[in-house]
Amino acid sequence: MLEGIEKRTGEQVGVGLDSCVLPTRHKGISIVQTTDFFYPLVEDPYMQGMIGCANVLSDLYAMGVSECDNMLMLLGVSTELSKQQGAVVNPLMIQGFNDQAKLAGTSINGGQTVLNPWYIIGGVASGVCTRDEFIIPDGALEGDVIVLTKPLGTQIAVNAHQWLDKSQWWDKIKDIITVDEVKTAYLAAMFSMVRLNRTAASLMHKHEVHAATDVTGFGIIGHAQNLVSHQKANVDFVLDTLPIIANMSRVASTAKDHGQDFKLLDGYSAETSGGLLMCLRPDNADRLCKDILADGFESWIVGRVISGNKQARIAGDVKVIEVHCFS
Amino acid sequence: MLEGIEKRTGEQVGVGLDSCVLPTRHKGISIVQTTDFFYPLVEDPYMQGMIGCANVLSDLYAMGVSECDNMLMLLGVSTELSKQQGAVVNPLMIQGFNDQAKLAGTSINGGQTVLNPWYIIGGVASGVCTRDEFIIPDGALEGDVIVLTKPLGTQIAVNAHQWLDKSQWWDKIKDIITVDEVKTAYLAAMFSMVRLNRTAASLMHKHEVHAATDVTGFGIIGHAQNLVSHQKANVDFVLDTLPIIANMSRVASTAKDHGQDFKLLDGYSAETSGGLLMCLRPDNADRLCKDILADGFESWIVGRVISGNKQARIAGDVKVIEVHCFS
Repeated sequence: MLEGIEKRTGEQVGVGLDSCVLPTRHKGISIVQTTDFFYPLVEDPYMQGMIGCANVLSDLYAMGVSECDNMLMLLGVSTELSKQQGAVVNPLMIQGFNDQAKLAGTSINGGQTVLNPWYIIGGVASGVCTRDEFIIPDGALEGDVIVLTKPLGTQIAVNAHQWLDKSQWWDKIKDIITVDEVKTAYLAAMFSMVRLNRTAASLMHKHEVHAATDVTGFGIIGHAQNLVSHQKANVDFVLDTLPIIANMSRVASTAKDHGQDFKLLDGYSAETSGGLLMCLRPDNADRLCKDILADGFESWIVGRVISGNKQARIAGDVKVIEVHCFS
Repeated sequence: MLEGIEKRTGEQVGVGLDSCVLPTRHKGISIVQTTDFFYPLVEDPYMQGMIGCANVLSDLYAMGVSECDNMLMLLGVSTELSKQQGAVVNPLMIQGFNDQAKLAGTSINGGQTVLNPWYIIGGVASGVCTRDEFIIPDGALEGDVIVLTKPLGTQIAVNAHQWLDKSQWWDKIKDIITVDEVKTAYLAAMFSMVRLNRTAASLMHKHEVHAATDVTGFGIIGHAQNLVSHQKANVDFVLDTLPIIANMSRVASTAKDHGQDFKLLDGYSAETSGGLLMCLRPDNADRLCKDILADGFESWIVGRVISGNKQARIAGDVKVIEVHCFS
C-alpha cells in the first residue's frame, strides 16, 4: 500500500531528486528543500536526535548544497512514554538534533510537536541558493566512476543489536558472530549515521561531480537505479564493490538462511543517513577520496558508468569490503 | 508532558511568530517558513487534505506572506486502514492537499510518506521574500482594533458531530440542539477550515495591519496572549466579541455542565485552520472587513488594543455572535 502511495506522490510531486529545486520570484535565486521524518532506531536519544538531523540534511547535501539556511524540527512524542521517561528522552532528542544543526552551521527555527503512538523524529532543511550552489544530478558520463562515502549495513547492524535481547533470533546468529562484534557493528552504524555528508557536499563542487544521491531507504541499488533513470546520457551504473560494516554481510546471509532476507548483497537493504553515491571522472574520484580521507574517513570507488539504457545493477562478481570503523 | 516539550522547543527554536523569518546569504532576501502536521478531524478525506494544506499555509498568511514559493507534504498512512480503505482514502487525501495548493497559487514539490498508527496529514510552506512582503507582528498600537476573519467553534462542531454516533454523549446534548443543527455546524466548520486565509494576508498590506496571528490550537485567547507578548508597545488586548458557529456556544455550555469543558467562552477552545486575528487602525479595520465581505465572507471586530502590560483577556461582558454560515 505504501508503495502505491509513494508511486502516486512520485507522479504528483516530482520525486526523483533528493531535494526539490524551485526558482523563486527573485532572479537567480532558487529554493532547495527537503523533508524527512522517521522512527528511532538507536537506543541513545541524543544520538538519535543527531541522526534525525543528519538524515534530513543529507538530501540537501546530495544536491551539492553545503549551506543550509534553515531547519525545522518535526517531533512526535510517543504516547507510550511515561512522564519520567519523556522528561529524560525528549530533551536529549531535541538537544541532539539542535547540536547537529549547529555542527552543520545552521539552526532550527520552527517545527511541530505532537503526541503520537510511535516516536517520530525528523525535520525540514532549506537552502536558498544561486545556480552555482547546487548540482542537478543528471550529468553522469560514460567512463565516470561511482564513489560511496559511507559503508552499507546500518539496518543489519541495528537489527543484530536488537537480537541480543531476542533469543529466538540471537540463537540463529550466535554461532557466526560474537556479542562484541555485534556491539562494535552497532556503534559503527550509529556513528556512521550521525556523520554529516557536508564535507562530501562541498567536495562535489571541487571535484566536479556529475550526479549524486544519498543512500537511504531503498538501498544502494534502489537509489542508484533512481539516479541513473534521471541521467541525460544513455548510461548504465554497474556496482562492483560493496563496502559493508564488518561482519554484517555474514549476519545478512545467515539471517537469509533463516528466512529474513535483508537483500544486502542485492543492494536493497535499507540504510539510514547513508553516504553519498557520486558519479565523476576517475582522476577526480581519486582526489575526492583522498580529501575525504584527510577529513578522517574512508570512501570507496564502488562502480562505473558505462554506455547503456539507464539501468543500475550489481556486478555478478561483486566484491565485498569488510569495513572496520574502529581500527 | 507535551507542554513541557513545547516550552522547551519554544526556548530553543524561537517559537513566537507563526512562521520563522530568516535572512539568507542573499542580500534583501529572507526565507519565511512554517510546518504543521496533525491528525484528521473530518470524515471526508478530500476535504481533510484541503484542510491540512490550508492549515499549513495559514502560518505563512499570518505573516502577511500571500505568495508561497513551495510546499512539501507530510503523510502518515494509518496502519489500521485495510488495503481497500487505503486505496480510497489515500489518493483522496493527497488530491485534496494538492488541489488546495493549486488554489493557493503554489504546488507541492516533495514530502515524506510513512506508515503510522494514527493517520497524519501536514506539510511545509516556504516563501522566499523581500522585506516588504512580510509583516513582523510586533507593531500593535493603543487605539487599534482587533479583527477576526473566521468564526470560532470548529472543535466543538467536530466533536458534536462525532457525538451523533456516541449515544452517551448525544443523550446529553439532544435536548438543546437538533441533528440537523449539528450537521449544519459541522459543515460550517469544515468549510471554514478549508477556506484559505490568503485574501486576508493580501489585505494586511493594503490596510496596514500592525500585528497578526492565526487562531489554532491554543484558542483565540492563547494566540492573542502570545501575540500581545511580542508587541513593542506596552499594550493589552481586550476581546469583547466572540463570533461562534451557530449553536456551538450552547453545546459548549451543556457539555461543560456534563464535565467536558472546551473553555470556548474563556477563549481556549482549540481551532484548526482558524481565522487571522489582526490589529489595525479602526478605519482600516472597517475597510478590511468590507473587502473580505466583497470576497463573500464575514469578518468581525472582536476587540481593542489599549494601554497595558502585554496581557490579553476576554472582557467581562463579552458578546457572543451566532454565526450562520449558510444563510
